[in-house]
Formats: sequence, structure tokens, C-alpha cells
Amino acid sequence: MTQHYPREVEVQPDGTKAQGTPATGYGAADKTSLLTPMHFERRVPGPSDVQIEILYCGVCHSDLHQVRDDWENTVWPCIPGHEIVGRVSAVGAEVTKFKVGDLAGVGCMVDSCQHCDSCQKGEEQYCENGWLATYNGPFKPDGSNTFGGYSDHIVVTEGFVLRIPDNLDLKGVAPILCAGVTTYSPMKHWGVKAGMKVGVVALGGLGHMAVQIASALGADVTVFTTKPEKAKDAGHLGAKASVVSTDEDAMKALKGSLDFILDTIPVGHDVNPYLQCLKHDGQMVLVGALEKLEPPNNMLMATQRVGIAGSLIGSLAETQEVLDLCGQHGITAQVEMIDIQDINGAFERMLGEEIHYRAVIDMASLKKDRNAAD
Amino acid sequence: MTQHYPREVEVQPDGTKAQGTPATGYGAADKTSLLTPMHFERRVPGPSDVQIEILYCGVCHSDLHQVRDDWENTVWPCIPGHEIVGRVSAVGAEVTKFKVGDLAGVGCMVDSCQHCDSCQKGEEQYCENGWLATYNGPFKPDGSNTFGGYSDHIVVTEGFVLRIPDNLDLKGVAPILCAGVTTYSPMKHWGVKAGMKVGVVALGGLGHMAVQIASALGADVTVFTTKPEKAKDAGHLGAKASVVSTDEDAMKALKGSLDFILDTIPVGHDVNPYLQCLKHDGQMVLVGALEKLEPPNNMLMATQRVGIAGSLIGSLAETQEVLDLCGQHGITAQVEMIDIQDINGAFERMLGEEIHYRAVIDMASLKKDRNAAD
Repeated sequence: MTQHYPREVEVQPDGTKAQGTPATGYGAADKTSLLTPMHFERRVPGPSDVQIEILYCGVCHSDLHQVRDDWENTVWPCIPGHEIVGRVSAVGAEVTKFKVGDLAGVGCMVDSCQHCDSCQKGEEQYCENGWLATYNGPFKPDGSNTFGGYSDHIVVTEGFVLRIPDNLDLKGVAPILCAGVTTYSPMKHWGVKAGMKVGVVALGGLGHMAVQIASALGADVTVFTTKPEKAKDAGHLGAKASVVSTDEDAMKALKGSLDFILDTIPVGHDVNPYLQCLKHDGQMVLVGALEKLEPPNNMLMATQRVGIAGSLIGSLAETQEVLDLCGQHGITAQVEMIDIQDINGAFERMLGEEIHYRAVIDMASLKKDRNAAD
Repeated sequence: MTQHYPREVEVQPDGTKAQGTPATGYGAADKTSLLTPMHFERRVPGPSDVQIEILYCGVCHSDLHQVRDDWENTVWPCIPGHEIVGRVSAVGAEVTKFKVGDLAGVGCMVDSCQHCDSCQKGEEQYCENGWLATYNGPFKPDGSNTFGGYSDHIVVTEGFVLRIPDNLDLKGVAPILCAGVTTYSPMKHWGVKAGMKVGVVALGGLGHMAVQIASALGADVTVFTTKPEKAKDAGHLGAKASVVSTDEDAMKALKGSLDFILDTIPVGHDVNPYLQCLKHDGQMVLVGALEKLEPPNNMLMATQRVGIAGSLIGSLAETQEVLDLCGQHGITAQVEMIDIQDINGAFERMLGEEIHYRAVIDMASLKKDRNAAD
């Protein structure tokens, strides 16, 4: 059932035809397909490119959104994966930060315009000309699709490759590249620091990273969850308190108590119960639900001058910062290792909230398909 | 039909029975009543009180909300009015800022706890123990109701009385005390300054003050309105541009262009068309709709890291600042003068958006009732 697709990129930045090297991965052929083995081509590394043999790739909820076309922008075939950790297998002549054999990571972006105001400020995730997503991103100028980390190797321009702390279990590092930085970036932007009272809504892939990172920043963390049994985990991750969000009395007791709330629920929901927990001038930031929320009550917002905002992944600099912070504090994701052949079942279990807290693909499992084909 | 009600306050701060002086005003006896003449008592000025003969009182949309119990917290009888300009007629022995004959103003608040964090920071409008509203506010400790500016005089503690610039037409000054500061406060908090691109949604009582104030701060103002005929007025008030918000092409042309949007629509509505007009890191603040909004789309918020927040009136210091700013720039509200006897019709015309842009009661008209009764 392995399908063959053309190379990922057809044209080099200098306009010449790209040379390709064979790559294998798992992707979906269309909206209703399961992920199946695919053959395609990666570009041969250019002068500033780093080629990475992928060791581990995290399974992000957005991989599922993208594969099922929930955002109505999926380009087929779709090979997901943007929590990539691996080892450098080749570098271009102009690469200075990496050498063959180094650990390296790739997150949600593999390029951006580099000249707009956002890029100049080091906020590539808000590139005014559209950053290039690690998968499902149209390459410029030719418009061909990018393919992600559910694959054996990837080629990325040096500026978008991250250094990986050498003291952490690599399996649990992969999710820092998206789940970690997506929660760290708004904490940094809104100034989360020691002594602040921070709420984290939902203890899933993003939430369990947020609790650890906020705690490492010195904040006093309260977890909101619908599942009482998660209280113990929340405590182990560093939270000072846990609240079952359906317990009205417990929610009332938190009224006006938090400086900042990071909401990681991956679908639209009612933000008002959380808004009430903010102090005057508090801020709530939503990083999970990239869709319509339920109606917020401006009476709640105005009477305390609180607000809600969205935030998207994080910059390259923030990704390196959060990797380094995790290195300093010994923070990794709690992971459930899977083989690539089990990805479709892992998607279903992620939907059923059965993954604690992040599925990570051991990319060595790709070889099983090769062995089977032999 | 004049109704008699007991004095506004029964107990002085020192616990002694308050002495009252007769006052007249217009109020509603219950949720379904029209406003009719009422007799009641104001307290005799205490040592730090200022007694003000009311010359003019603005008619705020919230007066109507309160009288019709839209917020389900109205205490009856309700005598509205919190855009008060008048002349000092008596002062207590310890009053230093005002003397008899001075112009003076009173806005939305007549007291606050003065010792909570918000009060200590000079943000009385977010008093953690609840500020005392100029009307419909329970006095402490006795819980009796406050009566507002639709009346002949008012007694207010010196710290909550504002100085009025002497170069402005007093009729147009009254609305600065609520409409003015309600729009100025969020502009100050979110740092509106020269060169910024600011949107003002809806050109009504608040909106027409916002346009003038933002322009005085040096911002480049765009007005959003559903009424093309308001473009000319917007220009006269200082706006650089006007957009009919139902014109999809015009809205599309503004995409990602504004730093800050002040939304003055007084009812719940769809914020998404305006959110799209914000630049990266832009902020939208709602000061009109103290109720549920329609569902905001977090895909729009996250992809530009923009947010929505609420803001409530303004502090005493901000009220004085905006009065002084208006004095420096010759800014007043555009007013339609009415007699107090016409207040019920004015409410209806306000609901029908027929007032351009603020009804202000000439309180000398109260004497007509007295003359008729003679």
C-alpha cells in the first residue's frame, strides 16, 4: 500500500531544479484516508541546510486537525509531524551551528520571509508574509507542499534548526518543540514570573508542559481539569492546586485570584467560568482552540479590565529558550512511545483523551516496513 | 404626581443620624415606570463634603439600562444621572480644593473604600470592596440608595469632585464625566499615542467622544459605523477615515491595519469583523456592551496574537486628566439640550439612535415643575 509522491520541493532558492533524495514517511492521501506509508523525495541539502535523521516525533493534536482538514486548508497528501528530534546527518557548506552527529530539533516552522516587521523582531510565527509550516506549508516560489516529521529524515535551513540540551531523555524532548513553546511563548509575552498565580486549563499534551514550565518560572500553578483523577499528576508536575472545573463551589472559591490563565482546551468552549477567576487586569490566553469560542460576557471582562487573547506557537528564539529552560530544570514531556504503524490508533486514543500526556513516535519503527518489504 | 421619598442617606460616617435638606429630581418608581418628579433629601454637607447645584446632567445609555433593570440590579426608586456639571453651593470645613461659586463635576462614582490595592493604585473604578455609584449605589453602612444627577443638587465627598476647565461650554462638558473618561481610560491603559492607528466602533455618545480624544492624543482615527451619513460628522470630529462596517470590501481593505480598536456598541454583537482589522499584537477594548458578545474566533486572535478586553469607566485621576485634555484641545460633546420634563421621550430617541450625540438636561427646567405647582 506504500504510495509514491514526487519530491517535497522542486525549485531551489536560486531558481535551479532541486535534486532529491529518497525519503519515507506516513501520510494521508485525502481527508478520509488513514495514514499509510509513503515514498517521496527531500531536497539535497543546500549551502545553509541541515539534514536530520529523525529519531522521535511527537504527535500533536493539530496533526489530527490537519489530517482531517478541520481547518479546511489541508493540501494532500499530508505527512504530519512538527515535534522533531534527531541527529544531524549532513550539513551545507555555510552551516556553522551544527555538524554531523549533533542532536537537533525542528518545530512548527521551517522558514519565514525574514524581512517583515515580525521577522525582524524575531517573531517569525507572526511573519506578515506567512511562515513556512514544517508540513502542509506551500514552498515558495513553486508552491509544492512540505512534508513533516512522520518520516525518516528532513532538510531544514540552519536558522530554523534548534539545539537540543544533552541532559534530557530525547523521547520526552520532542514535544517541547511545539507543546512546550506554544505554552512558553504567551507566558513570556505576558510576563509570567516568580510569585504570580497562574491557571492552566486542561491537563493534556499542552497543559502538562504548561504546568512544568510555569512552575519552573516560579509561578504558583492551579490546574483546571474535568477529571478529578488528574489532581495527583498535576501535583507531580509542579501544580500547587487542582480544581475540577465542573465543581461550582470550588470555582467560586477561586474568583478573582489568578494573574494569568493559559487555556489549552483544543476545541471551542465557555471561557466565562475561567474569566471569573482572574484578578483585576488579569489575562487569559487561549492556545488550544483555533476556532470559535462560546460567547464571553463583557460584564465580567469590563468590571475587572481582564481580557482574552490568542497566541500561536512561538518564535525560534523562544523555542531555543524553552528548550534551554527545560534542560536547566530537567523538564520533559510525559510520553507514551508508539511505533509509526500504530499512528492511526494513537489518533483515536488522542481524541478519546486516553494519551497521558503525549504520544511520541519512535522513528526506528519505520524500518519494520522496510524489513517487511524485503 | 410628584412622589416623596426618604433622604438619600440616613447615617453619617461617624454613626450619627444625618440631617437632610430637601431635594427634587426625576426618577422611576419601578421597572415599568416612566421617570416622574420625586422629592427626597440629600445629606447636609459633612466636613469633607462639597454641595453642588446641578446646572447640566448628561443622559447616558446606562441610565436607560439601569432604569429598565437590564442588569437586574436596580434598587427602586431610581434617580439616574452621572454626568454632572454644576456650581459649588456649600463646602464642609475641611474642604480645600473647592469654594462656593466654583465650577465642579461629578462622574460615575461618589466614593470607594480607599484602602484596597486598586484604590491605593488610584484605580477606584476597580475597588475590590465595590465603589459607590453616583446613583443606584448602596451607601455603607446603612445600605440606603444613592440618587443621581437628574436632580437639583448633590452632596459628594471632596475627593470625588472634579475641577472643570473654565474655557469650555458647560453644556458639552457634562458628558466628559462618563462618556469621555470611559473612552479615555482604556486609551491611556493600552498606551494610545501619536502615530498609532485607532479604530472607533459606532459613532454615538461614547464614540463621538472617543474620536475627539484619540485625535487629541495624536492618533490616526478610523470610524466604523453602519450609517454612511455619519462619515461627515466623523471627519469634523477629527477622524481620518470612516468605514461602513457592512461594506465587506471596505472592511477587507482594513485587514491588519489598526493598533487599537475601541468598541462602543452598547449591546452584544459580533466582534470578528473588527478583530480582523487589528495588526499583530493589536488590542480591541469593549466599553459599551456590558453583556455577552457573539462568539469570537480564536483562529483570528491566535494568528495575530490579538485580544479583546473590557474596561469600566475610569479613575478619578483619569477623569481629571481627560477634563484637562478637553480643556486644552477645546473638546466638548455635541449635545442636544432637553428639559427634564422631556426625559422619557429622550430615552426613546436614544434607543432609536436619534440623538446626535448626547442628550444633556438643562437642570434649570426643574423650576418649571415648581412654578407649575405654585
